[in-house]
Amino acid sequence: MSDIIKPRTLSGFMELLPKEQLIFNKIRDALEETYRLYGFLPLDTPILEYSEILLTKSGGETEKQIYRFNKGDTDLTMRFDLTVPLAKYVAQYANELTFPFRRYQIGKVYRGERAQRGRFREFYQSDIDIIGDGELAVINDAEMVSIINDIFTKLGILDFVVRINNRKVLFGFFTMLGEQENTENIMRVVDKIEKIGEVKVREELLRMEISDETCDKLISFINISGTNTEKLSKLKELKADNEMFNTGVDELETVISCLKSFGVPDDNYIIDLSIARGLDYYTGTVYETKLLKHSEIGSICSGGRYDNLAGFYTNKKLPGVGISIGFTRLFYILNDMNYLNKEDNSALDVLVLPMSENIEPCIQLVSRLRDNGIISQLYYENKKFKNKINYADKIGTHFVIFMGDDEIKSNTVTIKNFSSGEQVTVTLNEAVDIIKAGIKPSEDIKLVKMD
Amino acid sequence: MSDIIKPRTLSGFMELLPKEQLIFNKIRDALEETYRLYGFLPLDTPILEYSEILLTKSGGETEKQIYRFNKGDTDLTMRFDLTVPLAKYVAQYANELTFPFRRYQIGKVYRGERAQRGRFREFYQSDIDIIGDGELAVINDAEMVSIINDIFTKLGILDFVVRINNRKVLFGFFTMLGEQENTENIMRVVDKIEKIGEVKVREELLRMEISDETCDKLISFINISGTNTEKLSKLKELKADNEMFNTGVDELETVISCLKSFGVPDDNYIIDLSIARGLDYYTGTVYETKLLKHSEIGSICSGGRYDNLAGFYTNKKLPGVGISIGFTRLFYILNDMNYLNKEDNSALDVLVLPMSENIEPCIQLVSRLRDNGIISQLYYENKKFKNKINYADKIGTHFVIFMGDDEIKSNTVTIKNFSSGEQVTVTLNEAVDIIKAGIKPSEDIKLVKMD
Repeated sequence: MSDIIKPRTLSGFMELLPKEQLIFNKIRDALEETYRLYGFLPLDTPILEYSEILLTKSGGETEKQIYRFNKGDTDLTMRFDLTVPLAKYVAQYANELTFPFRRYQIGKVYRGERAQRGRFREFYQSDIDIIGDGELAVINDAEMVSIINDIFTKLGILDFVVRINNRKVLFGFFTMLGEQENTENIMRVVDKIEKIGEVKVREELLRMEISDETCDKLISFINISGTNTEKLSKLKELKADNEMFNTGVDELETVISCLKSFGVPDDNYIIDLSIARGLDYYTGTVYETKLLKHSEIGSICSGGRYDNLAGFYTNKKLPGVGISIGFTRLFYILNDMNYLNKEDNSALDVLVLPMSENIEPCIQLVSRLRDNGIISQLYYENKKFKNKINYADKIGTHFVIFMGDDEIKSNTVTIKNFSSGEQVTVTLNEAVDIIKAGIKPSEDIKLVKMD
Repeated sequence: MSDIIKPRTLSGFMELLPKEQLIFNKIRDALEETYRLYGFLPLDTPILEYSEILLTKSGGETEKQIYRFNKGDTDLTMRFDLTVPLAKYVAQYANELTFPFRRYQIGKVYRGERAQRGRFREFYQSDIDIIGDGELAVINDAEMVSIINDIFTKLGILDFVVRINNRKVLFGFFTMLGEQENTENIMRVVDKIEKIGEVKVREELLRMEISDETCDKLISFINISGTNTEKLSKLKELKADNEMFNTGVDELETVISCLKSFGVPDDNYIIDLSIARGLDYYTGTVYETKLLKHSEIGSICSGGRYDNLAGFYTNKKLPGVGISIGFTRLFYILNDMNYLNKEDNSALDVLVLPMSENIEPCIQLVSRLRDNGIISQLYYENKKFKNKINYADKIGTHFVIFMGDDEIKSNTVTIKNFSSGEQVTVTLNEAVDIIKAGIKPSEDIKLVKMD
């Protein structure tokens, strides 16, 4: 045919080769398994919604970044996060849900921004939220950190730290400095301190007509150092007649003390008073998560506490706490850094190679293997031995079983460990034992190997 | 707030309540697990593609049914199936893939048709395909039926039959009748025999100016009866000097004989010469799957063999065989018929209810339970006992653990089987054993209970 259309994928849209996809899915399964262990329930909302529903609170900036179009009379938008659909869902089905409502959602979201390295237009977010009806205990905020810790540890990402702050502490402190009008702006500047440095933060604060003296107080405040316990003591010393500040410090203390009970290692979380999160809707605890040796990457998992999830859709007050992993981005970072454990990533446990015209015993064999939970494939194609071995090599398999006339006659199989080269002729039951011993159960496998 | 926007979901877009979503996901996991056991590799292609890529072979009818729009200069379409993206993918990455390439994909697709009961605009398809490079053995066609059999059996759908035919047999037979020009049209009419009956099929054939005598032959052909072996014998008696027909009969015989080796029960598949599948691109084996007691539902899983997957994108000849489950539709059918097994569908294994101010031992307990793979939640909210029990009841849990000051002092837990009401005070280790014994491993659970 002459009029071939060159196959291509939109830039910024992820598409993986099968072996990478296998690892991606294993990570997804680890996320899902952990969320379920903590009692979170799955949610799967539509990718398309009424624009009116999704764009309630958006200004012009967001509008540019979204995929919005008309179909017939209907104004449609592809979801750009998983939070707005959650808000809609909870408001819509409030009477049928049980609160606190714990949900997880791992799904694709869409942003129309210019595609660049590390920026995606279609990407997975992996979100969990706990929504209360009217109120929600602060301990939930601590549990979020425990979940992050479990997930990263399970994956093999050991070298991380969750930075925790509380916006009430910041807001209260700024108010105590007489800067309550400026708190949102100050938070935005303070939040950049790691990126732009102390000097530039001071410059920006001065430009906001904040006095030198207040600047000093602000900067020495966010630089409060020591262990978490020491930081909490220093904060408690600052306790004043500002109720917001005092509440914030109490909440922070509750979170930190619960984390010990959850068994999260001390090294994996830290109070960081510079963390503010850009989004205005956080009202209490906020989190960011960094890879210790790769702070250039920024936060790989962020979130916080909010007072009211769904004010656009319902008069019900629905406070909550949530955390989101930019899953596609995290995957590409780990892949780019060669951190993904591809060693044990065979497509197959066993490839059965028929060496006889008699195919029926081979089919029976492969069915028996599958009945034993062994991922197996029978190579049917009528090719030379060399091609068959080449296929085994390229597809990736732990074992190869040869089934020739001798094996069929003697009711045995010849099994070869494809990495060690060891080969034996045994009964089928013995082969099953060899295979099961040779395949590490997947829970033992760390999917990520940090240096 | 006064300007509340009523939360609502686009019609034809599925959105489930958490308990239904749990079952949906369990079915999805069962599909995925079975595909993996057969050595299929996961694929996850973008939901948006260049319109030019997706719409190569589409006429006006498809165009109306699709979600297509412009973003900047780019003409975009949301995928309407998983086959076209597969074709693109295989052509694009042919050099990096290993053939035969076995892939599964479970993903959402979009059709802009008028939403009606049982018709979705956003729905999941669950597809598997095996793609050969140049050639592909017929045994693969049999393996598809074995996979369907495993999946439905695992889910608890026992009362089904896969109807198998071969388009070469039909095409060859029609050619032998001198109707080679009409084969596609005859296939379309013949395919409707179950829906419209023999009389109407004859009327339609006569309207196509097919002679009475040929009509008789056609109808007695598709009515060939008996066991699969008897049908094959009758077909072999018809063998003539038409190569297409003879090849088709040989292929059908191979498929049927392999199915015995795969261990598929005789009752679960049948040669049905009236099955033709509407799509022109099938060239050999074709399948449909019916629920025996619900033939009004139509086929819940269909597919077939094709000669060339990706002719629009590459000159490489890529024959394949595939099968697709309309997963969302199947789920809704089973749900509507009350066939989903919701009995054992608790959100939690254990809900821990603190009965003391001392929350730390409760947190430690729930962490220990999770370390043991037990899905557990600690109820943090400061509510009355009645509210706590009510929460346990509504969320659905196998066990409740009460942690009061007595239990904390004596290092025990009080555990209640929430369905039997049995309650004992034991050590944590004993509680773990009780819980594990009380929770059926999920592989034993049939998700569907047909009547």
